[in-house]
Amino acid sequence: MTSGLSDSIRSGDLIVVYIDRRRKWIVKVGEREAIESDKGLIRLNNIENLRYGEAIRTSLNIEARILRPLIIDYIERGLERITQIIYPKDIGMIIFLLGISSGSNVLEIGVGSGATTIVLAHIVKPFGHVFGYDIREDSLEIAMRNLRRIGLDKYVTLKLGDARQGVDEKDLDAAIVDIPDPWNVLDTLYSALKPSAPVVFFLPTVNQLEKLYNALYNHKGFIDIRCFETMLREYQLSLEAIRPSTYMVGHTGFIMFARKILK
Amino acid sequence: MTSGLSDSIRSGDLIVVYIDRRRKWIVKVGEREAIESDKGLIRLNNIENLRYGEAIRTSLNIEARILRPLIIDYIERGLERITQIIYPKDIGMIIFLLGISSGSNVLEIGVGSGATTIVLAHIVKPFGHVFGYDIREDSLEIAMRNLRRIGLDKYVTLKLGDARQGVDEKDLDAAIVDIPDPWNVLDTLYSALKPSAPVVFFLPTVNQLEKLYNALYNHKGFIDIRCFETMLREYQLSLEAIRPSTYMVGHTGFIMFARKILK
Amino acid sequence: MTSGLSDSIRSGDLIVVYIDRRRKWIVKVGEREAIESDKGLIRLNNIENLRYGEAIRTSLNIEARILRPLIIDYIERGLERITQIIYPKDIGMIIFLLGISSGSNVLEIGVGSGATTIVLAHIVKPFGHVFGYDIREDSLEIAMRNLRRIGLDKYVTLKLGDARQGVDEKDLDAAIVDIPDPWNVLDTLYSALKPSAPVVFFLPTVNQLEKLYNALYNHKGFIDIRCFETMLREYQLSLEAIRPSTYMVGHTGFIMFARKILK
Amino acid sequence: MTSGLSDSIRSGDLIVVYIDRRRKWIVKVGEREAIESDKGLIRLNNIENLRYGEAIRTSLNIEARILRPLIIDYIERGLERITQIIYPKDIGMIIFLLGISSGSNVLEIGVGSGATTIVLAHIVKPFGHVFGYDIREDSLEIAMRNLRRIGLDKYVTLKLGDARQGVDEKDLDAAIVDIPDPWNVLDTLYSALKPSAPVVFFLPTVNQLEKLYNALYNHKGFIDIRCFETMLREYQLSLEAIRPSTYMVGHTGFIMFARKILK
Repeated sequence: MTSGLSDSIRSGDLIVVYIDRRRKWIVKVGEREAIESDKGLIRLNNIENLRYGEAIRTSLNIEARILRPLIIDYIERGLERITQIIYPKDIGMIIFLLGISSGSNVLEIGVGSGATTIVLAHIVKPFGHVFGYDIREDSLEIAMRNLRRIGLDKYVTLKLGDARQGVDEKDLDAAIVDIPDPWNVLDTLYSALKPSAPVVFFLPTVNQLEKLYNALYNHKGFIDIRCFETMLREYQLSLEAIRPSTYMVGHTGFIMFARKILK
Repeated sequence: MTSGLSDSIRSGDLIVVYIDRRRKWIVKVGEREAIESDKGLIRLNNIENLRYGEAIRTSLNIEARILRPLIIDYIERGLERITQIIYPKDIGMIIFLLGISSGSNVLEIGVGSGATTIVLAHIVKPFGHVFGYDIREDSLEIAMRNLRRIGLDKYVTLKLGDARQGVDEKDLDAAIVDIPDPWNVLDTLYSALKPSAPVVFFLPTVNQLEKLYNALYNHKGFIDIRCFETMLREYQLSLEAIRPSTYMVGHTGFIMFARKILK
Repeated sequence: MTSGLSDSIRSGDLIVVYIDRRRKWIVKVGEREAIESDKGLIRLNNIENLRYGEAIRTSLNIEARILRPLIIDYIERGLERITQIIYPKDIGMIIFLLGISSGSNVLEIGVGSGATTIVLAHIVKPFGHVFGYDIREDSLEIAMRNLRRIGLDKYVTLKLGDARQGVDEKDLDAAIVDIPDPWNVLDTLYSALKPSAPVVFFLPTVNQLEKLYNALYNHKGFIDIRCFETMLREYQLSLEAIRPSTYMVGHTGFIMFARKILK
Repeated sequence: MTSGLSDSIRSGDLIVVYIDRRRKWIVKVGEREAIESDKGLIRLNNIENLRYGEAIRTSLNIEARILRPLIIDYIERGLERITQIIYPKDIGMIIFLLGISSGSNVLEIGVGSGATTIVLAHIVKPFGHVFGYDIREDSLEIAMRNLRRIGLDKYVTLKLGDARQGVDEKDLDAAIVDIPDPWNVLDTLYSALKPSAPVVFFLPTVNQLEKLYNALYNHKGFIDIRCFETMLREYQLSLEAIRPSTYMVGHTGFIMFARKILK
């Protein structure tokens, strides 16, 4: 049993070139001849003969490793961005709350640079689909470029339009909403989701939290309303001196969850 | 485009009967006649004629809703358990860190009651597989009962055995380790994983953190070693009085991440 | 140089009898003959011959230590209470924000059971004073009994009354407000405080946070408005297994700070 | 009843010149003619005629306020520093844990730039005293300059020396230790503290936590060993958009607490 991923690096592969946590690049094999870094020049011309996990050396004789990109590498390093993108701490929780997996059809209102879209598409492929709406054309262009580069575009349909006026889809399995006024898409969500299907909202301020909760409470089409906030602490690792990092991201947004019921 | 999930409740379906956050049950349609609760008796005999999202009434005329279970419902309410099970806040982050999706083949060392196994199987189905090891036969029996009930057992192979002595699999895409002495399975992991594949360890104490970091550092077969801790804050929602909950889970475990390289 | 505290236990002293974290009592020497516990009977009749820090033994031969009470012992174990009392994590930060010390005169609006009052009196004695207002007579009675027992009552004046209608004092150095509608005491605070003096508000909900911030913003008599929230994590300590405690207090209240200016 | 602080600004006073959170200066009246800022020149020559809380205007007609410094202003803005100084979130908790107040005599091992010393002196004045030890002469010089500027030097004795070899004082009421190897001063603490007196240790790493806990456990001269970590979240305040700040200080150090008993 094998997942069909090759151990060998091939032309056109997206690869991670890794020296350390802050010196990590995502490149397409064949696209660039070399990467310049403060640890020396990293030549990429002979890389097709290598296997994943092997080492190359910079011009300053520093070791770099070639790795197969994980979703977290794309999110951390590989995307063109026009808007703030979602954080790992939040997207993991959101995926889990929505309960989606291969075959799920998901609505995304507020696509931004497409970072969340990429994670959703990665989880629902090959049988599911993501329908993403945004009112900004430049956002959708960037999101589509990001999806194409990673090869996930066939699992996604992006649409320019105002979801507050409704969406084309019906019977969707889950939805995620990341726009400033989510209280204005409750009817849209109600008609697009399957009965019992979950929706997650992402909100930066407590004022939005209040308004959305009041709107959900009064709408009567959703139950099991919950609100979460995730905090992620990273640790600095070194021999004899392990400690939480001095600085951390203290807030990104609140995660509101609800499920559609039949009115 | 539809995910094929029926809107109608059918015999044999696992359903959620939901009154409120603390009054939520997972039952199989046809298995029980009624649920007794402090909000009255909930009769389940005519439930097959309903659609998901519809309401029924208890003997005290309180409304209950029938919902399709999400993965979080199984984790929160639906499992037999013999050991502490993983928390939503951690499993979401772990799934994201491992980058797994449909088709991934995953090693799990330390199966316990199978809660993590269920989430892994849910994500890798229908083309991937989970290979789970545990040294306790009673754990594996409970885990298998939990997997069967939810219908995920065909994506999982559980084995009784000490992974410190090695495992049968090769070329796996990812691994998760939740045992008290993870520093003793580094060679096992190294031979079971594809080059460049990630592994995540789950550890409750700082003493384990120190020992595992020292072991990974000295092993030389893993890089990009990182350590995280997630904190999840839930909010109490009521009109005019939204606030973080008074009590929270302050700690479950540390999440250590690493990737295999070729030595 | 000595603080004048005796090493010997004397009749009338408040003492801590300590077996472990959860088995800790505050008693007045001479008041009780013994303490009953699940670790055996602790006889207190010969205790006056001992020095602080010495051990006695329960009837089951378990060691208990006699300690001099710290402020944290009173807060954790020594108070009659009618309302939720403030937490160590918050009161330390509040004391620090207010910048009070011996000689400061402090206004307290919302006395409750007097826990905060005790800490304020402890810090401002012997030259300062606390002026506490509450609209509940039963609260003030309990607060006064708590203050008397600890011997801090001479540094405090408690008044039954509605501070929203004003207070008698002028030229105070600092104020703390812990009532449900703090936006209604801004004029009171403005006339009671010295120019440039700080005030701290304690608020459980985000709705209160919004209302108070709006009120302070519009009042124009206060600047340097800041809002904090403290989180306290305790660690479980045991040899080879140090870890953060599983459960923690996730929220008590928000701390809002401001300083009076001359309009 | 008055604390004797004048409402009028006098020559030699330390004052805060405040425009906003990031534009805040501590200056001595008479010492400087003006402050240059990106909001214009702030002339200080006529400031002695003003009262605290009054406004002046910069050359760009921006309002600045004159405030009386609080302890938090000194910590945030007023100190020369050679080492990392303690954070408000920690020092408030430490003061509370130690239970000190006017009249307490406190040992400080590891003075650094004197920030903690200042807070301790502020709390124990006018009848208590702080005895501070450090092995670095340059630290002690800076700490003394900081104490003198604020006028707290008469409540503090700083000594150049290695507290691991012992200290001169006996019968102290409390101690705070902030050095890399606190397990080496347990005998020093035991002989310097009154029976039953508390000590607090401040430690950045989990490795130190382990070593200190093991040392305290084996020493037998201390009980009620506890360990805490404080987290402080600040909120961004603006009308209709209140939210926790994006970035926060995620870790400074662990706070270990213990009390001396008679062996």
